[in-house]
Amino acid sequence: MKNNFRILFTLLLTCFFQNIKAEDVELTNYVDPFWGAAEHIWIGGHTFAGAAMPFGMVKLGPDCNEKNTNSGYDRHGKIHGFSHVHVSGSGGNPKYGNVLVMATSGKLNIKNYGSDRANEVASPGYFSVDYSSYDIHSEFSVTHSVGFHKYQFNKTGESNILFDLGSYLIWPGDLSWTQELVGSEVKINSRNELQGYTRVRRGWGQGKAYTVFFYAVLDTPADNIGTWKSGVQFDGEGSQSDTNEPVGAYLTYNSKPGQVVKLKVGISFLGVEKAKANLMNEANHWDFEKTRNDAKLAWNKELNKIQIENSNEVTKSIFYSALYHALLQPTNRTGENPLWKTNRPYYDDFFCIWDTFRATHPLFTLIDEKRQVDMVNTLLDIYENEGYMPDAWSGNSYAMTQGGSNSDVMIADAFVKGLKGIDYELALKAMLQNAEVVPGGNEEKYGRGGLSSYNTLGYVSNDFVRSGSRTMEYAYNDYCIATVAKGLGYNEVYDKYSKKASNWKNIWYSGVEHEGAKGFILPRQKDGSWVLTQNLNEAGGLMGWTYEGNSWEYSLYVPHDVAELIHYCGGSKMFEQRLDTFFTKQGKSHSQYTNDYFNISNEPGFLAPLLYNYIGKPYKSSELVRKILAENFKTGLDGLPGNDDSGSMSAWFIFHSMGFYPIAGTDIYLISSPLNNRSIITLGQNKKLTIIAKGLSDNNIFIRSATLNGKPLNRSWFRHSEIINGGVLEFTMDSKISNWGTSDLPPSMSGR
Amino acid sequence: MKNNFRILFTLLLTCFFQNIKAEDVELTNYVDPFWGAAEHIWIGGHTFAGAAMPFGMVKLGPDCNEKNTNSGYDRHGKIHGFSHVHVSGSGGNPKYGNVLVMATSGKLNIKNYGSDRANEVASPGYFSVDYSSYDIHSEFSVTHSVGFHKYQFNKTGESNILFDLGSYLIWPGDLSWTQELVGSEVKINSRNELQGYTRVRRGWGQGKAYTVFFYAVLDTPADNIGTWKSGVQFDGEGSQSDTNEPVGAYLTYNSKPGQVVKLKVGISFLGVEKAKANLMNEANHWDFEKTRNDAKLAWNKELNKIQIENSNEVTKSIFYSALYHALLQPTNRTGENPLWKTNRPYYDDFFCIWDTFRATHPLFTLIDEKRQVDMVNTLLDIYENEGYMPDAWSGNSYAMTQGGSNSDVMIADAFVKGLKGIDYELALKAMLQNAEVVPGGNEEKYGRGGLSSYNTLGYVSNDFVRSGSRTMEYAYNDYCIATVAKGLGYNEVYDKYSKKASNWKNIWYSGVEHEGAKGFILPRQKDGSWVLTQNLNEAGGLMGWTYEGNSWEYSLYVPHDVAELIHYCGGSKMFEQRLDTFFTKQGKSHSQYTNDYFNISNEPGFLAPLLYNYIGKPYKSSELVRKILAENFKTGLDGLPGNDDSGSMSAWFIFHSMGFYPIAGTDIYLISSPLNNRSIITLGQNKKLTIIAKGLSDNNIFIRSATLNGKPLNRSWFRHSEIINGGVLEFTMDSKISNWGTSDLPPSMSGR
Repeated sequence: MKNNFRILFTLLLTCFFQNIKAEDVELTNYVDPFWGAAEHIWIGGHTFAGAAMPFGMVKLGPDCNEKNTNSGYDRHGKIHGFSHVHVSGSGGNPKYGNVLVMATSGKLNIKNYGSDRANEVASPGYFSVDYSSYDIHSEFSVTHSVGFHKYQFNKTGESNILFDLGSYLIWPGDLSWTQELVGSEVKINSRNELQGYTRVRRGWGQGKAYTVFFYAVLDTPADNIGTWKSGVQFDGEGSQSDTNEPVGAYLTYNSKPGQVVKLKVGISFLGVEKAKANLMNEANHWDFEKTRNDAKLAWNKELNKIQIENSNEVTKSIFYSALYHALLQPTNRTGENPLWKTNRPYYDDFFCIWDTFRATHPLFTLIDEKRQVDMVNTLLDIYENEGYMPDAWSGNSYAMTQGGSNSDVMIADAFVKGLKGIDYELALKAMLQNAEVVPGGNEEKYGRGGLSSYNTLGYVSNDFVRSGSRTMEYAYNDYCIATVAKGLGYNEVYDKYSKKASNWKNIWYSGVEHEGAKGFILPRQKDGSWVLTQNLNEAGGLMGWTYEGNSWEYSLYVPHDVAELIHYCGGSKMFEQRLDTFFTKQGKSHSQYTNDYFNISNEPGFLAPLLYNYIGKPYKSSELVRKILAENFKTGLDGLPGNDDSGSMSAWFIFHSMGFYPIAGTDIYLISSPLNNRSIITLGQNKKLTIIAKGLSDNNIFIRSATLNGKPLNRSWFRHSEIINGGVLEFTMDSKISNWGTSDLPPSMSGR
Repeated sequence: MKNNFRILFTLLLTCFFQNIKAEDVELTNYVDPFWGAAEHIWIGGHTFAGAAMPFGMVKLGPDCNEKNTNSGYDRHGKIHGFSHVHVSGSGGNPKYGNVLVMATSGKLNIKNYGSDRANEVASPGYFSVDYSSYDIHSEFSVTHSVGFHKYQFNKTGESNILFDLGSYLIWPGDLSWTQELVGSEVKINSRNELQGYTRVRRGWGQGKAYTVFFYAVLDTPADNIGTWKSGVQFDGEGSQSDTNEPVGAYLTYNSKPGQVVKLKVGISFLGVEKAKANLMNEANHWDFEKTRNDAKLAWNKELNKIQIENSNEVTKSIFYSALYHALLQPTNRTGENPLWKTNRPYYDDFFCIWDTFRATHPLFTLIDEKRQVDMVNTLLDIYENEGYMPDAWSGNSYAMTQGGSNSDVMIADAFVKGLKGIDYELALKAMLQNAEVVPGGNEEKYGRGGLSSYNTLGYVSNDFVRSGSRTMEYAYNDYCIATVAKGLGYNEVYDKYSKKASNWKNIWYSGVEHEGAKGFILPRQKDGSWVLTQNLNEAGGLMGWTYEGNSWEYSLYVPHDVAELIHYCGGSKMFEQRLDTFFTKQGKSHSQYTNDYFNISNEPGFLAPLLYNYIGKPYKSSELVRKILAENFKTGLDGLPGNDDSGSMSAWFIFHSMGFYPIAGTDIYLISSPLNNRSIITLGQNKKLTIIAKGLSDNNIFIRSATLNGKPLNRSWFRHSEIINGGVLEFTMDSKISNWGTSDLPPSMSGR
């Protein structure tokens, strides 16, 4: 036996360090839930640091300081409690922070119960912190729909557990974009059971009211109970009805030092009984460690979908922290849709597709195709029931459409990658709804703003905000429509939309020259005249001309026809110069709306570093990507270069550390330069793609040669179909540049 | 004492028969809740026959037969139970029918529990019926938010009370317009207390999901309880959670013959605790007769706002039955809005303004100005929170916009009549939103469909459905905007919209002649060409050219500029001929979408009978209106000429029986010919307007002369300001026509 154990131990050790031989090796230890959880208003990663399951409905985390951060977490200030619903990585006004539970000791204070904090510890599915103001040790774990709380009261005397249904994340200022309470209710059924709801609306994207119902049970009956409404305490009163005011409930214990009280909170978006059913189905026991361990196992299974070998433990930690954060969202709310009955799955918190269509969803397609199919089907369900596919959807509501109708890209991406289980005929209708039916109202809830202009002039005129970025995105979206139409045999639609895919040319003004580059997109009036005063490296915000990017960036945003773009830029040499300038020239200081020429912290530039591949100089891409990775991604709270945007920054890191990056909406991946010695992607049905970087070192960052399943791969790109059945993609790395990737350039729509 | 009593009795008797001297005489006896409750799919009145308070949230009535009628009531078939939410008089697909309660005897059958019926009795706030299949006598009364049930079980053995949360009114066929269940929950808290909700969406106008929460308490604990889900019975199980399925609960009694069980059901659109609070606030007792009497008193108070003297008891019964039905809706749901918190009142079931702006709301303005202000403020609240004022709003959701943006008319009507407590600056913004911002999507949720066409061409081109009626209504709506803009001093807006108010001319084709009339509105293409093949007396429906009316009708629909219309029709003589033809010529057979030339059963023709006033021949109007009243309004279930449309037909009857009719959106009332000898309208603040028809008889139907507060009134119209402070409007009736009203014709925009 002893020998057997040793062998097993050695094997496990080998697996652990090599990460390549066994199934489901231990990877959760590499995850830092705090990674990117910094709260700076624009440039913080805003990742969720609390306890959650993969794509979990309950995201149980601390709401800190002024409760004005996007994920609830803030390294500063007091903790006000743990609430059960959050998003990860969002920018703009915060959303959620519902059903907040807090434990205190001493005399109850329903108005000011926040605590100082110490010893925060987090791992996938787990969080613990000491409420140092109250000498309470608290631990938290979760199932998909249930928050499991464990409080150890270390003082003698009164201890309290508070449920604040009037609490939620806010960002004072623009009232129409800040969450506001619609109403709340609470009822204490017995001394260890209570229920109720909170109803909140608005937040980022000005969503409609959503209701979070809860049912909570405690393992220890309270000695006293009470409720409150709008700050008025009602000792002994067991319920508060909805008068559009904030209500809460408390349970008080005459606790002994060391006494532990456990508490489970089931959550539902349908009703209280459903919240209770969720609780009973998922956590019908009081074994906190079991719940914690189940969550860990679930995460380990997810994380194992990409096993990497990398001698740099820091990179590994970033990698798995990124993968972890990429798998938090959209939220799986299947069976929890209060808007309509459906047989389709239901995901919420597409927050937002403008961010995630580029890298996050293509990542899901690789490592969890079924889930991506479910998400696409959610979009179609929303189209069928609400009129349009969303670009952003949160809290059972459309949020804000920032640019194009990028659900189109998700559809095309699924189509060209052959995803099964999607009604593409319906999907094409949904795309055409985006492209042909004016959305109306403020034109940023769904569909395409400025569509009437775009469809008559061939570009969005300067009468509309974001006319530049909208035009560029719509052209790309139209390419995606053409792709699906062609595949389904709708040739007229294909013809129409493949023409529209060149609409970006309609705002291309060849006469303008800046920093050596000639030809830029420029604002154009409806009479055809140009706004020549546009500052080319000034990024626009909500009301600007180019959203979260400037003319330099958006003039490079033609993912479907880079060859034609190069032609427009004056050929390869001019294009190279332009890129060189773009990536080295420093612009204004950072903030959300003003960028350098290139800016990795917002998504419009995500693809740009790989454009050198199109002029046969992939080594420049390789060098550049490595530089961006090194300079912008690190461990810790500040590890991300900007809002994670539902795992978008994370997915960008993940792809590039494996050495390639998708062009969403097409079946093409561009090769950059792997950080990992080895990456093994489980593609589903136990097919695996292994990516090997032979000879990789800090100096050997250039690809000298490549093989795919043993055959030479001399191009700097490959197709989805070439890797989806698994195999080995092997790069031989070198410190010097080679002629690899100089010919057989990545394809473009125009076929140049 | 005896003498005193006699005097008092005589006085009361005098009041009762004269109806004019005392406050709050007994009028509920004149009300027949069954009036107009016929269920024929298009031409039935569809009025609500159950128990409700004025504008009450709970409308507790029987859901009968196939449960596919609009008010739940159907004279045929079984009663399936009494549900708590209904609308009155609607057409199209039914809405509501939620939280259905049924009593049965014998073995429980959760799938088939309907009963034969006998002895239906209804009065304001009260309904009773024998469930003859079960030998149960049932009675129902209500408060604003509570249904009070009383069941007398006359059999020995098992008796059951069922709560079916999966029940609602349907109209099979077009699935997207028929109500469907989203989900439901139930929990039996104890043997005499239960709670839950039903969540339903769609129905007429394809509304979003609404949730009706209930809390119910019984005066007698049940002997056995149980629940069900999707037809599967769970004896003894006390709750069912929401899995998007229909659930129900039952309470079983081992009852003795004659045993009475009472039951109160509190309703809320916010939550269960609110439903309970509503119950406790409004009916914290078990005195059924008190509730019944309170309801009666409340109705009597409302009905007394118009006291009439009319020797014809039938007319009186119709009058008060009409007034009763006009006061059922919109539903006062102040404090019950689940969408946002507001300090404004909240009315739901504007169902729809296209029907009610013409007569119902002007009636409210006269008899209950404060309530009309509250309703207008609800529209503004919806504008501020959802983007547009509604044209139809039901179940906390936009329903269908049929024609113009007639909320504009309600605003203008309030403005010109000087209603206080409305932010008219905000209201003008809301009107301009209708007029200037394309609604998008299917263009019939809010705003103006075909607006892009209307605002560029000056008419809605034939590319859009209902282009004819939309153009006519938009011109009128634009007049309303001009009115408010002028009053607020926005001269540019006034200029712009007073020009647009003539846009009806853009679809007037003078070259067409039909049945002696020359010049009609015709469909027009966007290139300016005409569709000369249009059948002028063919009415259009949803997809037609003119909604619920034909070119003959809509060619007369220029309420704001009849003088100009007369000019377009070739002058007074030609106009008179045209009217004569219109009102006498018989067209095709009736149905919703095909009319006679004139058709009183849909609203576009509401004003037409009074157009003779504009050519100085009010006697023709008088004669015609009396004919229409006599031929179309009678007592009983079939007493109405079409769907009551939230009291629209009722209000038409009420105005004309008093002898005048409003031009909504203006301060003008046109005089027709009173049916009542005397009508006393309480205008608020105890000001009264008395309308006297001296010498009125079956032959004396023409006005020989008139005085207003003793001064001669020689015109066939008056202004709101002339009567709003009360006074006496006295008509002297004659059997012969006179020269009264031949000059000083009603004013028109063009001032011709």
